[in-house]
Amino acid sequence: MEKEIKNILTKFKKGKISFQEFYHYLENLPYYDLEFAKLDMHRSIRKGFPEVIYAPSKKLEQLISIVKLFLQRKERIIITKLKSIYFKKISKIFPELKYNPIAKICYYRPYNVKAKGMVAIITGGTGDIPVAEEAATTLEVMGSRVIKIYDVGVAGVHRLLDKLKTIKKAKVIIVVAGMEGALASLVSGLVKQPVIAVPTSVGYGANFKGIAPLLTMLNSCSPGVAVVNIDNGFGAGYFAHLINSL
Amino acid sequence: MEKEIKNILTKFKKGKISFQEFYHYLENLPYYDLEFAKLDMHRSIRKGFPEVIYAPSKKLEQLISIVKLFLQRKERIIITKLKSIYFKKISKIFPELKYNPIAKICYYRPYNVKAKGMVAIITGGTGDIPVAEEAATTLEVMGSRVIKIYDVGVAGVHRLLDKLKTIKKAKVIIVVAGMEGALASLVSGLVKQPVIAVPTSVGYGANFKGIAPLLTMLNSCSPGVAVVNIDNGFGAGYFAHLINSL
Amino acid sequence: MEKEIKNILTKFKKGKISFQEFYHYLENLPYYDLEFAKLDMHRSIRKGFPEVIYAPSKKLEQLISIVKLFLQRKERIIITKLKSIYFKKISKIFPELKYNPIAKICYYRPYNVKAKGMVAIITGGTGDIPVAEEAATTLEVMGSRVIKIYDVGVAGVHRLLDKLKTIKKAKVIIVVAGMEGALASLVSGLVKQPVIAVPTSVGYGANFKGIAPLLTMLNSCSPGVAVVNIDNGFGAGYFAHLINSL
Amino acid sequence: MEKEIKNILTKFKKGKISFQEFYHYLENLPYYDLEFAKLDMHRSIRKGFPEVIYAPSKKLEQLISIVKLFLQRKERIIITKLKSIYFKKISKIFPELKYNPIAKICYYRPYNVKAKGMVAIITGGTGDIPVAEEAATTLEVMGSRVIKIYDVGVAGVHRLLDKLKTIKKAKVIIVVAGMEGALASLVSGLVKQPVIAVPTSVGYGANFKGIAPLLTMLNSCSPGVAVVNIDNGFGAGYFAHLINSL
Amino acid sequence: MEKEIKNILTKFKKGKISFQEFYHYLENLPYYDLEFAKLDMHRSIRKGFPEVIYAPSKKLEQLISIVKLFLQRKERIIITKLKSIYFKKISKIFPELKYNPIAKICYYRPYNVKAKGMVAIITGGTGDIPVAEEAATTLEVMGSRVIKIYDVGVAGVHRLLDKLKTIKKAKVIIVVAGMEGALASLVSGLVKQPVIAVPTSVGYGANFKGIAPLLTMLNSCSPGVAVVNIDNGFGAGYFAHLINSL
Amino acid sequence: MEKEIKNILTKFKKGKISFQEFYHYLENLPYYDLEFAKLDMHRSIRKGFPEVIYAPSKKLEQLISIVKLFLQRKERIIITKLKSIYFKKISKIFPELKYNPIAKICYYRPYNVKAKGMVAIITGGTGDIPVAEEAATTLEVMGSRVIKIYDVGVAGVHRLLDKLKTIKKAKVIIVVAGMEGALASLVSGLVKQPVIAVPTSVGYGANFKGIAPLLTMLNSCSPGVAVVNIDNGFGAGYFAHLINSL
Amino acid sequence: MEKEIKNILTKFKKGKISFQEFYHYLENLPYYDLEFAKLDMHRSIRKGFPEVIYAPSKKLEQLISIVKLFLQRKERIIITKLKSIYFKKISKIFPELKYNPIAKICYYRPYNVKAKGMVAIITGGTGDIPVAEEAATTLEVMGSRVIKIYDVGVAGVHRLLDKLKTIKKAKVIIVVAGMEGALASLVSGLVKQPVIAVPTSVGYGANFKGIAPLLTMLNSCSPGVAVVNIDNGFGAGYFAHLINSL
Amino acid sequence: MEKEIKNILTKFKKGKISFQEFYHYLENLPYYDLEFAKLDMHRSIRKGFPEVIYAPSKKLEQLISIVKLFLQRKERIIITKLKSIYFKKISKIFPELKYNPIAKICYYRPYNVKAKGMVAIITGGTGDIPVAEEAATTLEVMGSRVIKIYDVGVAGVHRLLDKLKTIKKAKVIIVVAGMEGALASLVSGLVKQPVIAVPTSVGYGANFKGIAPLLTMLNSCSPGVAVVNIDNGFGAGYFAHLINSL
Repeated sequence: MEKEIKNILTKFKKGKISFQEFYHYLENLPYYDLEFAKLDMHRSIRKGFPEVIYAPSKKLEQLISIVKLFLQRKERIIITKLKSIYFKKISKIFPELKYNPIAKICYYRPYNVKAKGMVAIITGGTGDIPVAEEAATTLEVMGSRVIKIYDVGVAGVHRLLDKLKTIKKAKVIIVVAGMEGALASLVSGLVKQPVIAVPTSVGYGANFKGIAPLLTMLNSCSPGVAVVNIDNGFGAGYFAHLINSL
Repeated sequence: MEKEIKNILTKFKKGKISFQEFYHYLENLPYYDLEFAKLDMHRSIRKGFPEVIYAPSKKLEQLISIVKLFLQRKERIIITKLKSIYFKKISKIFPELKYNPIAKICYYRPYNVKAKGMVAIITGGTGDIPVAEEAATTLEVMGSRVIKIYDVGVAGVHRLLDKLKTIKKAKVIIVVAGMEGALASLVSGLVKQPVIAVPTSVGYGANFKGIAPLLTMLNSCSPGVAVVNIDNGFGAGYFAHLINSL
Repeated sequence: MEKEIKNILTKFKKGKISFQEFYHYLENLPYYDLEFAKLDMHRSIRKGFPEVIYAPSKKLEQLISIVKLFLQRKERIIITKLKSIYFKKISKIFPELKYNPIAKICYYRPYNVKAKGMVAIITGGTGDIPVAEEAATTLEVMGSRVIKIYDVGVAGVHRLLDKLKTIKKAKVIIVVAGMEGALASLVSGLVKQPVIAVPTSVGYGANFKGIAPLLTMLNSCSPGVAVVNIDNGFGAGYFAHLINSL
Repeated sequence: MEKEIKNILTKFKKGKISFQEFYHYLENLPYYDLEFAKLDMHRSIRKGFPEVIYAPSKKLEQLISIVKLFLQRKERIIITKLKSIYFKKISKIFPELKYNPIAKICYYRPYNVKAKGMVAIITGGTGDIPVAEEAATTLEVMGSRVIKIYDVGVAGVHRLLDKLKTIKKAKVIIVVAGMEGALASLVSGLVKQPVIAVPTSVGYGANFKGIAPLLTMLNSCSPGVAVVNIDNGFGAGYFAHLINSL
Repeated sequence: MEKEIKNILTKFKKGKISFQEFYHYLENLPYYDLEFAKLDMHRSIRKGFPEVIYAPSKKLEQLISIVKLFLQRKERIIITKLKSIYFKKISKIFPELKYNPIAKICYYRPYNVKAKGMVAIITGGTGDIPVAEEAATTLEVMGSRVIKIYDVGVAGVHRLLDKLKTIKKAKVIIVVAGMEGALASLVSGLVKQPVIAVPTSVGYGANFKGIAPLLTMLNSCSPGVAVVNIDNGFGAGYFAHLINSL
Repeated sequence: MEKEIKNILTKFKKGKISFQEFYHYLENLPYYDLEFAKLDMHRSIRKGFPEVIYAPSKKLEQLISIVKLFLQRKERIIITKLKSIYFKKISKIFPELKYNPIAKICYYRPYNVKAKGMVAIITGGTGDIPVAEEAATTLEVMGSRVIKIYDVGVAGVHRLLDKLKTIKKAKVIIVVAGMEGALASLVSGLVKQPVIAVPTSVGYGANFKGIAPLLTMLNSCSPGVAVVNIDNGFGAGYFAHLINSL
Repeated sequence: MEKEIKNILTKFKKGKISFQEFYHYLENLPYYDLEFAKLDMHRSIRKGFPEVIYAPSKKLEQLISIVKLFLQRKERIIITKLKSIYFKKISKIFPELKYNPIAKICYYRPYNVKAKGMVAIITGGTGDIPVAEEAATTLEVMGSRVIKIYDVGVAGVHRLLDKLKTIKKAKVIIVVAGMEGALASLVSGLVKQPVIAVPTSVGYGANFKGIAPLLTMLNSCSPGVAVVNIDNGFGAGYFAHLINSL
Repeated sequence: MEKEIKNILTKFKKGKISFQEFYHYLENLPYYDLEFAKLDMHRSIRKGFPEVIYAPSKKLEQLISIVKLFLQRKERIIITKLKSIYFKKISKIFPELKYNPIAKICYYRPYNVKAKGMVAIITGGTGDIPVAEEAATTLEVMGSRVIKIYDVGVAGVHRLLDKLKTIKKAKVIIVVAGMEGALASLVSGLVKQPVIAVPTSVGYGANFKGIAPLLTMLNSCSPGVAVVNIDNGFGAGYFAHLINSL
């Protein structure tokens, strides 16, 4: 966003935009009031990445208004948990938007941030892939490179051991697992890197929609594990990128 | 799988397959990487039975790729909790697959394992039958004989007592019960055999989708009971077969 | 209490007590205000039995004030969950009070109510006896006869079947059980009588201080069971007496 | 059922049925084995009422087989929680079946049992009526008379007080309430009769599908309350009838 | 606190304190840094009442340091859930402190705030009195008058109805109840005033240390009820005073 | 309602209605018995606002009967959580009814109550707006003025601080928040007014349908917060109006 | 016990005991009524092992009476969760009793049962050892040989892999683990044998006294695992012995 | 540990230790078998820090054996949650051990690791300090510098804002908070750094021993937060150091 502010300033100095336009820009810097939403325009400066949109609690028209505003600013966009039928409608208006249909995540990356270290994303099973993909797309939009190692759960531990060399190349590791979620403890016991654990709601019965792996991960007997919310691939990706950017 | 490995070796010795083909086989022995899934090909050797597929978290195309690979190896197949509309589509491609529509379990048994002892499967009510059938099909595919005694819950205990002689002929007993799940304690109090208890989500209100019978079974005042996950007929069948094979 | 009111009236008519005294009596009929407690003096008329005192939330002096008032009225007294050291202190002041040390229940029965039908109290194990005794003493003070059949849990069902003839003589049945609490369903499946189930906190681990048997009893697959709070022997006895008095 | 047994015996004595037929009848007395279900034919003798059918866990054909068998015996039938589309199909085959569409309960009463005392059914709100109606129909099929007092929750306590005189005429009281379920304590504080409390899943948020009123009722500070499962109108009706028959 | 600031200012103007002293005062206005605690000195201005001290998580020396600072400012003090042995030690140093031993609340009121409206505090039982007293003392220190109506639970509703006239004189009502906590709904159904409900941990078994009355109060079918934390008498008193001050 | 009673009385005095009609009116004053519902007609006098209708547990015909009765009395109407397809049907019969489609609340305001103080409604996100709107409509129908400040959650705290001046003008504040619900504590730490916190079910995973923000709000470390049920916008609005009317 | 019955019979035949004595023996065969306990004497015949005594719910005198009776029968004895101070008192009377102080288990083995296969007991940490020892002693008293592999949790997986060869020699495996309990899944993925998983209450915070490992084990993604109650070393040992005896 | 291995090698090369001694060293490299514990000696190489000892599940003698072994290796030691009376006994034997009595953490740092970036530790209240200190000591032993900002909870947000500049100098931030735990979301909304949130069990009632802040932190609406177990200061410190070392 820094660049954008400089541009605006230059434009104003060169007389390409009036003082009124310049002032209006500054006025909306902290947030833009859409009445139903106060878009946190300052977040890009404060946190290094603009506000991320959580789709399930928003109406189509609301999403369109928000996207419009972000596109005007040439800001990166991430919309999480967006249904594909919604994306179809929105992308007709804004064809520059992209979509990862497995992760149900919509994004827009107007410029490439230079990729830093690498983040390994590991899943216990195939059912955990949508959450892993949410993390992966988040990381890529933010500018991190990703290695994906899917379906290496503890039921066949050799599949994981076989990939260990690759995993150790990463700077941070994300472990995505449902069922009993034992994979995070195991991985963490084998590596030096910080492990971000994402419990998923994959499973049935006493899995209780992800409570079982959530508790497993919080109680990891192997240190070096921190946990995000159930199915929160975005949160894990975001957190991993913060570390990866250090 | 032992047989298969011998066959491959013989074929190679006899020059029927090239070294390249032989090597490729060995290379994939530990697992076969379908990218979205790492099929644990070694499991058949390590655990005595190949990897079992949990359908709910997989897409149709993924299931088809997996089945294809297993069929090539002439391996036994179990796919649990597969919807009938999915089975219809898959069985058009692979007509050798079979299906137990009550248990929603799909299977393939290319050869008959010689059946050993017998496993008794007892249900409290009729609502528990789908879970019991999942156990039964699992046992039969793995090679155990099964006796089914359905709907003999504690509300009318004479129905159970009447069948006791038959039940005692089994080597292991599976008790499947929802509601309050008291049947496991009762059966275990009457027999010498190990009892594997399967709570089901049959019930309403304070049943809490199977928590009530789960707790009942974990707290059995009668020793000789071990418990698997709610509605996990497959797990009970698998565990019973391990014991039955001893 | 009816008798007492008649007595008071007679005394007044005969001039043994003044109008002032008579009026004061009537004035306090609905409740007696001890400031920290409003004793429901009307309850004996309205509900057939005076207010029962729950000891754990009261101080020694408070208990003494309350007992004093009840004794003046020659009313039956039940104090539940009273620690023995408390009883020792109180009984020095009021030697007419009695105590069941197993049930930790203190009582006073100034007159004998003619006993009606019989209530059977059954426990699963020996650990459930304190709760069963609380029910038994409650019943006896209220005027019901009791048969006790202890330690006949489902782990050895023949112990129960052996006593069935005796149990069937009762008008109401109380089943007290901890662990998994399966006994209530079993008993109810064998008899015509209403079964009042009392879960106890006997057990450990996934018993969760009585939640396991509570859920078991609420989900009884055998109809004719109603449940009271965990360890609430008093409540079961009280409810059983109401039925027994019909 | 007693009558039926006598009839069969008389028929046999009179030579109307052969010994084979008589023997077959006796043979099936304890239970009738439909393979998927073991109908407890003995229950009518043992418990005073035949086995009640819980519909949700049964298939249409299974229900038809069961109903057929019961009708042959001229036994009373209760099928709980039966969807109306199921009833439509079944009643085409067995037009003698009746249905209470509010309670989703199906029943058949081939003869009238002489009604004894009366049972009052009270609800807190209108949303509790389906559960109350389940209790009412159960009671009527079993032979108890019912008074219904609906929508008298604690938010407007005068509505209840106004009906108190009527309520006190009953021998047993059923209180059906969702939301916070406070009505049971209140009613029990006002009457001498045993109160059977039925929590319902009416409510939202921290009601947790009936957990809130369930806990309220189990903890009633007013004695004389026993509780059945959430939404278990049938269980309350059954239990109330047992008491009402004493 | 306004007065104090004026005093300081006057003193400075009159030359009684140096500019250094005046500046130091202003510097510490927002908060005073005791290293282990940052006392929010601004709160009295911002919220109308200074920071309240929650004793259980503090050591004796920490409490003494905090009290010292407050006394220097001549500020009102509330310390909640302070054990009596702690109070004994602290009051030796600061004899101006007072203590309500039932509520375990310590306080200091250097000046009298003119009392406004009245707050009624109602309890269901005697066991709820400590929590009620915490609310009462909080209200009195803050400057509200209090009427106490204890032990009028729903088991004997006439005790409540009898006091209704008095209760209706209050501007706000606090209902403190454990067990099933039904009293809040009942009171709210009878009055116009806002009702603040405080669940207490009085009870046993399925009371779950106050969860039962908490849920009851959150689900009140009678509108006009808001809830604070279990046993949080202070919070209820504080909130009631805010309303009472309007 | 006072006015209505006077009108009726005047009409009767003037002979416009017969004594029979007058008597019938008085007879129905406490409640009107629709058999399935006992409408609490007295509530308007007792509580200052008539009974509010909770739609989810009522059938269309029942709603129509109730509305009809209220309209005859020219009483204000609030129907909460009413689906739009239901409203369409009802409003064809009663075109005077209005509807807030975001809040799913239906209302009728036959006369304007003079607005008193102001209530600020603050939401954490856009997903909380439906619940906030339910509170807003409730307040407006009852006669309170409302200021809405939406989407100012703690993720970008400057949005809130920016609006603080406006918020402080209100007499009471309602904070509506899902996810982790931290907004209530934050707001309460900044203002003098009583804060009514409404947790919403917006979120996923370990949000547990609103349990997370509910617990957050109950444990607020900042005093001056009271809580209503999850998603209970109506309850918050009602409670706020009671305070606002003082 | 078979031997004992033969002995008795022989004694009677040889005239060493009278018919009365013989009859008395037979009479007590099903159970021995101590009034507070009905010892299930038939269990040894029915289940292959006599009734096991759960100490926490019994008084000292009760335990002594029970032990006395068992010793008279020369029966094996297991008393679980017996405090060491209790053991000291009991062993003064019955010096033949033995005690494992880590497991708090008391036992008596009058004869050696010929040991069959071997059972491996694996723990995740050192804190799990008491529960493991309970299993070990149970197995040894029942007649199974035991291999102990302690402290090989997933935090350092090489410790487990190193012992794998030894583990594979066992017929059954018991895995005892607290914290997150991931060890059971891992072990089960590596071996053919049935794995009995015992969650322990070792841990803190979100371990919730063993709920975390309990859920982990119930959801094991690796088949071949069955679970017993939290801290139930005895139950695991008993169940393992049943399998080991096949 | 690298240094130590080099030292050993040099010693061997220089003939200071025999081959036997050298070999024995290598042999024990993966783990040292104390029978009751298998100390993971390889962890220092694999994870960069040796195994950390969790005291609550270990006996005094066990702790002494473990410490002895670590001291011989001149390895850093961390023992968490060690009671002070235990420390007193251990430190008599090993006076080189140090202890943080607030955090109940014992440690030994034989050499100084060069400190890298800085970690800010923030607490909501004073009750959270013990957990914060556990994190602080862990970080310092591992080699990270720490800034402590205690008691800046959301009830007085200006205390936090005032320290923001200092906080922003850190590379990673740890937020420790009990009660409702809102502080983590707030901090994360203001900074770019990754925030590690530690819920504490400080609070009462609906805090449920830390569940409330745990859920709050998992649901943080502000991205960039990951969570560790309740009261797990060590885990947070360990994880923060991993990031700080990148």
